[in-house]
Amino acid sequence: MFRHLVRRNDAKIVFLVLDGLGDIRAPGFPKTALDAARKPNLDRLAREGLCGRSLPISPGVTPGSGPAHFALFGYDPLAPENDVGRGVLEVLGTGFELRHDDVAIRGNFATAGADGVLTDRRAGRIPHEECVRLCRKLQNGIREIDGVSILIMPVREYRFGVVLRGEGLSPEVEETDPQLTGRAPLAPVARVPEAKRTAEIIGALVARCNAALAGEPKANTVLMRGISRMPRIETLQERTQLLPCAIAAYPLYRGFAKLCGMDLVDTGFSVKEELEAVRGAWGSGYDFFFVHVKKTDSFGEDGNLEGKTKIIEEVDSHLPILLDLAPGVIVVTGDHSTPCALKGHSWHPVPFLIHSPWCGTDGARAFTESECDRGGLGVFPARNIMELALANAGKLKKHGA
Amino acid sequence: MFRHLVRRNDAKIVFLVLDGLGDIRAPGFPKTALDAARKPNLDRLAREGLCGRSLPISPGVTPGSGPAHFALFGYDPLAPENDVGRGVLEVLGTGFELRHDDVAIRGNFATAGADGVLTDRRAGRIPHEECVRLCRKLQNGIREIDGVSILIMPVREYRFGVVLRGEGLSPEVEETDPQLTGRAPLAPVARVPEAKRTAEIIGALVARCNAALAGEPKANTVLMRGISRMPRIETLQERTQLLPCAIAAYPLYRGFAKLCGMDLVDTGFSVKEELEAVRGAWGSGYDFFFVHVKKTDSFGEDGNLEGKTKIIEEVDSHLPILLDLAPGVIVVTGDHSTPCALKGHSWHPVPFLIHSPWCGTDGARAFTESECDRGGLGVFPARNIMELALANAGKLKKHGA
Repeated sequence: MFRHLVRRNDAKIVFLVLDGLGDIRAPGFPKTALDAARKPNLDRLAREGLCGRSLPISPGVTPGSGPAHFALFGYDPLAPENDVGRGVLEVLGTGFELRHDDVAIRGNFATAGADGVLTDRRAGRIPHEECVRLCRKLQNGIREIDGVSILIMPVREYRFGVVLRGEGLSPEVEETDPQLTGRAPLAPVARVPEAKRTAEIIGALVARCNAALAGEPKANTVLMRGISRMPRIETLQERTQLLPCAIAAYPLYRGFAKLCGMDLVDTGFSVKEELEAVRGAWGSGYDFFFVHVKKTDSFGEDGNLEGKTKIIEEVDSHLPILLDLAPGVIVVTGDHSTPCALKGHSWHPVPFLIHSPWCGTDGARAFTESECDRGGLGVFPARNIMELALANAGKLKKHGA
Repeated sequence: MFRHLVRRNDAKIVFLVLDGLGDIRAPGFPKTALDAARKPNLDRLAREGLCGRSLPISPGVTPGSGPAHFALFGYDPLAPENDVGRGVLEVLGTGFELRHDDVAIRGNFATAGADGVLTDRRAGRIPHEECVRLCRKLQNGIREIDGVSILIMPVREYRFGVVLRGEGLSPEVEETDPQLTGRAPLAPVARVPEAKRTAEIIGALVARCNAALAGEPKANTVLMRGISRMPRIETLQERTQLLPCAIAAYPLYRGFAKLCGMDLVDTGFSVKEELEAVRGAWGSGYDFFFVHVKKTDSFGEDGNLEGKTKIIEEVDSHLPILLDLAPGVIVVTGDHSTPCALKGHSWHPVPFLIHSPWCGTDGARAFTESECDRGGLGVFPARNIMELALANAGKLKKHGA
């Protein structure tokens, strides 16, 4: 980032991030979702704007959600200080005011047999209301262990958050999730001597949760994952002088936005509700809007090309809500690729478009992987997206005489 | 740079740099100057050669002329030691033999009212002969201040150069140009304690210039800008073993070439005169020719698409002077983009072509931004242009066994 070049103005920037957007043609998948989708608005933005392929980390590296979003916002996705634990992200995403010396944990409700062996790592994907009820039950019974406060909060469905608050804690404790069913949960093991007490507290916490959950039909045990502490990250305001906000329904992405210093705007889960939330916040002084659409990724992970295609069409159909606000700069891209053929995140560069009066055009005819391959931006590091958006918004001065 | 791989041979390399060449299609500008120009010779070079888009610094960063040229010649445009002041560049451009402990200043003749408030920061863009007369008048009256020699020289039109030569000087002094009319010039302020005496000398110099210029109709005051000292930069000869020369009419670019160790060839201001100067120097042992055409940038800064188009056509019409010399490698590009729609330097990557018997071809049909977008080099850092030219000239050995 070129912090010394930044200047403020009134132009507004929107990042519309379709999670896992990028896809590939592969045996059984002759078209990508972007190839197949009817999406006149996105195609028009591509024709009027500039296209390319953004590379989250490196040509062969598959990013997790954290590094992928860090790169999108101009941070170094490989810097150790930007390696943020899932516990921190999920807890922040609930709106919880995490402190730098708290230890945050992402919990799974899970199902185990009488022998303690896991039969379902997600407790049959219990509904969100069940999660809320179970968290209340746990919190009512567990307030404190060995002088450390225990704060338990629902995240979504089978996911919950735990915060340990007190003196002398350490996040250097191994997860208890064995990652496979047919095994018992692992004991929390300290990676360094200073974490021994924290490991013991987490062990005691698991035992007390198991006792409280005995008799529950599905969620009769817990897994402790992503045990972590909030890093001190330079905020987007500090780096870019932007006043940023996030419209994201899923806690992980809200957490990520919070960590980068974005305000969280209330929103429903549908694309329409998200875009309406942008409209609602448009006059509030923000000049950067991060809009996160989750389901492109979820359908990619399921290998569901039709579902992924339909979500893109849904985004396109509601896009006029955003376009009517006439943002100075619109970026549409993904944080990474989630090809239906691979049913998971991948290393492939991500279709990218930027639209502004000053972006120039490149002859791209539609917003697809293959048109973006021929775009005027080429294949470029996702880390440069933020600077490119600032430039197009007139928010970067010239470097040198 | 890959200094250990360099080998000498007789092949000659020409860099034809059309300043601010890159442009964009934007509202009101459906074609770029390269789209619009009739330029059969450049288009033939593109068809026979290899095209791409060169990125001066980074996808969103707009370069000044200094960093942009540094990148063209293979230097790191962001390295602090390559951050050269305008004073140094302008003074070197006059042919003055600047020493490393001199302090160089770029002066503006300007107009102020009786109250000292600026009414024109460029003194009505006085003609060059006026500049020469005024510099002689100032130099005749001012030879020395507090034991420091004062050397005053015309640059061009309202621009002049000042060199302070003596003991204990420092370039860490703020400019006196307030950048706006309706304000009085600023006092020269020392940024560090060691620069206090230099600031006082510059203050005394301004007072003596004002006294000498009292009664001049337009140029009745001066502004002191780009107060700087010449950095120690590894020359092109040292880095590449090339014997380089520069054909550039404008002082800033002559200064830049000098700084990189190029010999300055005398030339007139027109494209034809510049290309004839190349022909004149062709047999003198040089194997690298930097040819700088300024007016593509000037017309871009004025938003004058027709003017920019005509200069490109002018270059094309005189190109046979160069082509008849049959250079081993021809590079045609800009130092940066200056889109007519933006009336200023911009961040957009620059159309680039290289022509040699060994460059390969990529199917580009013409030398335009959009054909270069699809060129075989893709979007690539301008810093790699020099190494690419050396390779095409057979001047780089294989790396490794």
